[in-house]
Amino acid sequence: MSQPTTYPQAAIDKVLAVIQFDAQGLVPAIAQQHGTGEILMMAWMDRNAVIETMRTGRVCYWSRSRKAPWRKGDTSGHIQTLIDLRVDCDGDTLLVEVDQTGVACHTGRHNCFFRAIRNGELEVIAPVEIEMTGKD
Amino acid sequence: MSQPTTYPQAAIDKVLAVIQFDAQGLVPAIAQQHGTGEILMMAWMDRNAVIETMRTGRVCYWSRSRKAPWRKGDTSGHIQTLIDLRVDCDGDTLLVEVDQTGVACHTGRHNCFFRAIRNGELEVIAPVEIEMTGKD
Repeated sequence: MSQPTTYPQAAIDKVLAVIQFDAQGLVPAIAQQHGTGEILMMAWMDRNAVIETMRTGRVCYWSRSRKAPWRKGDTSGHIQTLIDLRVDCDGDTLLVEVDQTGVACHTGRHNCFFRAIRNGELEVIAPVEIEMTGKD
Repeated sequence: MSQPTTYPQAAIDKVLAVIQFDAQGLVPAIAQQHGTGEILMMAWMDRNAVIETMRTGRVCYWSRSRKAPWRKGDTSGHIQTLIDLRVDCDGDTLLVEVDQTGVACHTGRHNCFFRAIRNGELEVIAPVEIEMTGKD
């Protein structure tokens, strides 16, 4: 398990200053596994999720479906430890480099991008690694 | 240069059937470099961009700023050749695995995620590789 990266408030403020939150106050955040480059998932952060993620080193999102803060892994234990946080050229997308405990996807697959066309059919190309119950 | 992956209409229809376009008719698409895993950029596709990307093997987006179709690289030559297209668990994010010609970012950097906190400051952590003029 990697040591989480945390940031002082002054650094958090510098990141917040360049993020272009959308009309709903959200910014998309891509989670990438440190070391392997695997894209785990894409979810949304509000201002508080960015602050909480950077302050604690535990990746937090805003759940659009539940309309609530989502500290990833609180229920499942499948937490994301923050390694680095990057802001794109326009400030409208974040990249969080993480160390994923367990699996990233609520379906129990390691990442969420498991559907692709193979032999003309939309197929599931990654196995369920962990049976998930309830929310993530 | 990789050979582009293209898809027949029946396969395109199967992908379109599971994409959850947002209220603006758009879906976020993450572009990842084939082989290295580098996350190049995140942009948006409308229905026609998905169709054009899959039909031609040249990655196309919808430019929200220009409110127009955006066949990446038409101006700059920095095209993205499609290798694979994946749909996430909820159908609301796409992952396009690509072979990037030149650079992905309109700033001339190889990818768009070049700002990060270093020593407490928001720093540019990737060099300009190609001087860009005009739009991408």
